[in-house]
Amino acid sequence: MNNTLGRIIRVTLFGESHGASIGAVIDGLHAMIPVKEDEIASALMARRPVGAISTARREADRFQIVSGIFRGMTNGSPVCILIPNEDTRSEDYGENLTLLRPGHADFTSHIRNYGHEDFRGGGHFSGRLTAPLVAAGAVVRSALEAKGIKIGTHILEIAGVSDRAFESVPDVESVKYSSFPVLTEEAGEKMRAAIEAARADGDSVGGVLETAVTGVPAGVGDPWFGTVEGQLSYAAFSVPAVKGIEFGRGFALSHMRGSEANDPFTVADHRVRTATNNCGGVLGGLTTGSPIVFKTAVKPTPTISKEQKTVDISKGEDTVIFSRGRHDPCIVHRAAVVMSSLTALVVADMLAVKAAEQELAL
Amino acid sequence: MNNTLGRIIRVTLFGESHGASIGAVIDGLHAMIPVKEDEIASALMARRPVGAISTARREADRFQIVSGIFRGMTNGSPVCILIPNEDTRSEDYGENLTLLRPGHADFTSHIRNYGHEDFRGGGHFSGRLTAPLVAAGAVVRSALEAKGIKIGTHILEIAGVSDRAFESVPDVESVKYSSFPVLTEEAGEKMRAAIEAARADGDSVGGVLETAVTGVPAGVGDPWFGTVEGQLSYAAFSVPAVKGIEFGRGFALSHMRGSEANDPFTVADHRVRTATNNCGGVLGGLTTGSPIVFKTAVKPTPTISKEQKTVDISKGEDTVIFSRGRHDPCIVHRAAVVMSSLTALVVADMLAVKAAEQELAL
Amino acid sequence: MNNTLGRIIRVTLFGESHGASIGAVIDGLHAMIPVKEDEIASALMARRPVGAISTARREADRFQIVSGIFRGMTNGSPVCILIPNEDTRSEDYGENLTLLRPGHADFTSHIRNYGHEDFRGGGHFSGRLTAPLVAAGAVVRSALEAKGIKIGTHILEIAGVSDRAFESVPDVESVKYSSFPVLTEEAGEKMRAAIEAARADGDSVGGVLETAVTGVPAGVGDPWFGTVEGQLSYAAFSVPAVKGIEFGRGFALSHMRGSEANDPFTVADHRVRTATNNCGGVLGGLTTGSPIVFKTAVKPTPTISKEQKTVDISKGEDTVIFSRGRHDPCIVHRAAVVMSSLTALVVADMLAVKAAEQELAL
Amino acid sequence: MNNTLGRIIRVTLFGESHGASIGAVIDGLHAMIPVKEDEIASALMARRPVGAISTARREADRFQIVSGIFRGMTNGSPVCILIPNEDTRSEDYGENLTLLRPGHADFTSHIRNYGHEDFRGGGHFSGRLTAPLVAAGAVVRSALEAKGIKIGTHILEIAGVSDRAFESVPDVESVKYSSFPVLTEEAGEKMRAAIEAARADGDSVGGVLETAVTGVPAGVGDPWFGTVEGQLSYAAFSVPAVKGIEFGRGFALSHMRGSEANDPFTVADHRVRTATNNCGGVLGGLTTGSPIVFKTAVKPTPTISKEQKTVDISKGEDTVIFSRGRHDPCIVHRAAVVMSSLTALVVADMLAVKAAEQELAL
Repeated sequence: MNNTLGRIIRVTLFGESHGASIGAVIDGLHAMIPVKEDEIASALMARRPVGAISTARREADRFQIVSGIFRGMTNGSPVCILIPNEDTRSEDYGENLTLLRPGHADFTSHIRNYGHEDFRGGGHFSGRLTAPLVAAGAVVRSALEAKGIKIGTHILEIAGVSDRAFESVPDVESVKYSSFPVLTEEAGEKMRAAIEAARADGDSVGGVLETAVTGVPAGVGDPWFGTVEGQLSYAAFSVPAVKGIEFGRGFALSHMRGSEANDPFTVADHRVRTATNNCGGVLGGLTTGSPIVFKTAVKPTPTISKEQKTVDISKGEDTVIFSRGRHDPCIVHRAAVVMSSLTALVVADMLAVKAAEQELAL
Repeated sequence: MNNTLGRIIRVTLFGESHGASIGAVIDGLHAMIPVKEDEIASALMARRPVGAISTARREADRFQIVSGIFRGMTNGSPVCILIPNEDTRSEDYGENLTLLRPGHADFTSHIRNYGHEDFRGGGHFSGRLTAPLVAAGAVVRSALEAKGIKIGTHILEIAGVSDRAFESVPDVESVKYSSFPVLTEEAGEKMRAAIEAARADGDSVGGVLETAVTGVPAGVGDPWFGTVEGQLSYAAFSVPAVKGIEFGRGFALSHMRGSEANDPFTVADHRVRTATNNCGGVLGGLTTGSPIVFKTAVKPTPTISKEQKTVDISKGEDTVIFSRGRHDPCIVHRAAVVMSSLTALVVADMLAVKAAEQELAL
Repeated sequence: MNNTLGRIIRVTLFGESHGASIGAVIDGLHAMIPVKEDEIASALMARRPVGAISTARREADRFQIVSGIFRGMTNGSPVCILIPNEDTRSEDYGENLTLLRPGHADFTSHIRNYGHEDFRGGGHFSGRLTAPLVAAGAVVRSALEAKGIKIGTHILEIAGVSDRAFESVPDVESVKYSSFPVLTEEAGEKMRAAIEAARADGDSVGGVLETAVTGVPAGVGDPWFGTVEGQLSYAAFSVPAVKGIEFGRGFALSHMRGSEANDPFTVADHRVRTATNNCGGVLGGLTTGSPIVFKTAVKPTPTISKEQKTVDISKGEDTVIFSRGRHDPCIVHRAAVVMSSLTALVVADMLAVKAAEQELAL
Repeated sequence: MNNTLGRIIRVTLFGESHGASIGAVIDGLHAMIPVKEDEIASALMARRPVGAISTARREADRFQIVSGIFRGMTNGSPVCILIPNEDTRSEDYGENLTLLRPGHADFTSHIRNYGHEDFRGGGHFSGRLTAPLVAAGAVVRSALEAKGIKIGTHILEIAGVSDRAFESVPDVESVKYSSFPVLTEEAGEKMRAAIEAARADGDSVGGVLETAVTGVPAGVGDPWFGTVEGQLSYAAFSVPAVKGIEFGRGFALSHMRGSEANDPFTVADHRVRTATNNCGGVLGGLTTGSPIVFKTAVKPTPTISKEQKTVDISKGEDTVIFSRGRHDPCIVHRAAVVMSSLTALVVADMLAVKAAEQELAL
């Protein structure tokens, strides 16, 4: 299994849903990057389940910085962050995996691990593992902000209820570390109502996230195996439940003609820029200097209370399942900060790689 | 710049549109994998421009296997394939880059390379570089086929004209190495007409590809940084003009409820399988054993004959551009074999990594 | 900083000498590899300081398996092992780094980290970090033993006192997890006496380790960037104080003629083997099937009680230093198990990579 | 097989001794690095066999830059350099491998490749493959020189005849691109005589190289998996016939006491430096700012004219072999420029990685 992301700025993830702790190691960080614990706490808070629209499992997400920080700044050695699992109810689970939960990784994990996975709560496949990713992302986001690079993700749609998209100059600040990040509160209300309705039906809903990154200079990324789109996608699909991604106008571009789709170049403020941003800030795999903008499709939470057809893997027989354990009727809003965190890790790594290559040329 | 894809089965790409040759090195191939030159030739033929719907630049795509093949089989050392550039017209280009072509990498490449890129024909960013990728993919596709794994990509849509999607058991054979791969010839006719129409207008069109992989066993891939979706996406965005990707029902899943979206498990032929394949053959980042199915959005070819607003980078002034050089009004059909080739490389690498991890456990 | 070793079987190291804990994450382990905690404990015990010939810092090396183990076997997700720092005396260190300890990383670490390293006890550069490496190695060593591969390191020399070398069939079992691994007890006595003598003088001594690996089949490794020698060296120099490595007859080969140095091939027990093993079990970068044998030079422990010339980095002035803190007059014996552990990690990774490449050919 | 070296500055090697061409792809080079073809030619010339002390195979080493160079400078895309094989005599080889040459990779390559290697002239294992490495190194050496970093390797010993070692300020310039690099011509004469004598006996000799790198600032490298020693060793063992490496005083340190071995720190010219350089310019895995100095042991050329015991692999029987083909009685002098070239690639990569990590901190 590969749990490491990145070439220079690298995060390594570990832990299981019902183990002692989960965590991440962030390597490749130079010394003297300021790290604020309250930033990490805020980021984790944005990911936590809230109110009636979320799971009843309530983890405090107390985190412990095991290494790599000295007097409030990185010391150049790897940062390990541990988050204890506190609210596990392993007794909810039997001796062995029996019923495969549709839409979950129960089956694929079982096959992969020769039947010896930690199946409780999804084990290492659990969405809970996104907590250390968010913590890792928070460390890097602060460093990026110091360079004028900001990242934000908002809910563009839940259960068919849409909010407006980011403006051409995305107001990413407004949604930072929000636990239900929307651009218009009215849309948010309707979304929450739709989630509640699904929950009342014992069902779940999905949605679409929109992420933007501002302040990245032009010329970051690579044309072939290192496109901005490819690198961000690689990370984005690590967010459980994501099943699609598109940059700029994305799938809509496939219906356009070139004369509509192409972003004209123009000179403004002594810099070349694109007059529109249909390409989502990326041309030829490299940043244009305009905001990087992409959307991700989040499928409905697979755990539902309704009866579903499935297999009892211990018997090899068809049967039905009703959800067990505590679960979220929607995880779209919780996934937002995870998406921003992964984006931060990828952007930081791309900038590092660019600086590396410039070293010999300058 | 990073031009290497893969962890074990690795392809490294090199060359420029107007250089002497372009090529690829495929490393990590064990000895005794049969390599048929006519398979490579067929794959390259599928990518070549054809008829009135393509560019007038006609490259023979004669390829030379420089290393790694001995008596018709790999010999365990890296396979280098060279493809000479024969039909270049470098005289079409001036001394220096002047007009930035909208939708192309001219600007981003220029900034990245401190203005010292080989700008002729897009240089290293040219779609021409997909030829060695196709050759490399052909080598690996044969090896996968010997293991019962088949890959196919067809045109799902061009210029808004749709073909039917793959069946639940995708007939990938029927579209293999077709130069205009469609499932129903009628849709193909309409698509070609739409391309012709765009060309008559001096414009271009885009579309959507659908790719399927059959025969991959369950349990391949990783949950976090090695999801099947993430790895395929990373490679898919290397295909120039791709701006979106979705697995299974993809973005449509975001509107569904969990009870609709989840694929029920069932036992059939003594094996667990999903009754439907909304997830596109991937759950928790791992293969389910059902076909892997994904769609990619291809933007319209950026080069068009119409006047477009742009910048003369040598003067820093706004101006207009009319297309120069020979170009395709649509590259969707030509991208199909490229997508399959990259998919083959990724799938082969995932299988290799899985075998690697099993080594210590068995 | 890069703290990850390996392509498939990967270990990531974290922690500082005076932090809360140190640890390692081992990724790429398949499920169902048995892990015995007492094996890990034995390995750690072999590394611990003992008696009068070692530092007075006595760490219990209690370890906690945070993740990746389920019912006594790996579960396919990353194994994180934490080892708390219990016997730190941070009060031995002032507010800031002042005196650079000759032979240590104080200066190089200080420069690298812009002066913001955790300098207490060497921080992340401390030999203490070898404890999690030993724990990680123990996990992998058991798995290798199940495949018939055994690893052992013994002290060939300390302070000029030599023991005999491994026989052509190295008895690696006899030195496994010994805290002072020698092949003849008499030599061991003399070595200990030499260490005591150095200690009495307030000085320190170094030595040479010999490591052997048995049971690795022929054909493992790569000729260019993946030679068995190169991969083992890369890891061996991670053992602090190692300054040289040689395979087989090593530097002595440089004085021989080809007719002496070459190992003749012969058929024995229906297998091709070399009649001698001057090459240390490696030809052309690949294993011959004979034991892999190499020697490593360990410099004397840099910390000594004698007065030494150095610089006060806080003042930029020349001065003298007397050792501070607790220290070892010799670490050669303690390094033995570390060398075997790293060797195990490298060998496991090479086997995994070989299996990966075979996947497409079979 | 892995044929790629480096994380940012990466070289990928391909080709076989009797194939059409051999070559290398250098990736990760930024645009605007000047590349002089005569530098590459000079480097290749230094590696070529000369006079009576070398093989009769005389390759012109004409090279072709296939990509990545535009108007005398890198253009930011991968540089591919091809070197045709011109003086092959494949007819010297039979249909299949029969006699295993002792000391060569014939056996290990045969096993690894399931008997399907290109065995002619060693195939991909041939020392001939060092030619593209030298070409690649020449590109990078020029770039390093522009930053004040110089590299040189001289013959410290051949057949027991020693030359003096580098001074504390190594005169690396004097041996650059020499085809028989010695510091004192008298020693060189004796060495050549010893080579001649061995040749007259139908035998071969080995030796020791000493390499130095000047101008690398302090703080480059990593303590654990990225030590300067480990990275250079990884590359050094890629040079065929190298069987040992030591940094600074190396194995001699193992006999010293700490008080002798430690390099005192002192302030000179407002900079901290070590008064001696027993550590070879590396402490804690990082550069001290003093020259990096290491020695490598080169075994005698395995091909000799004397009768040797071996196995006929086609029959599985013991037999004897007399050398076939053309060969060198000594390759120590020819290996010098290869060692410098690989050193250049490693140093460039370490500098690039360091710059990458600094990006987020500044």
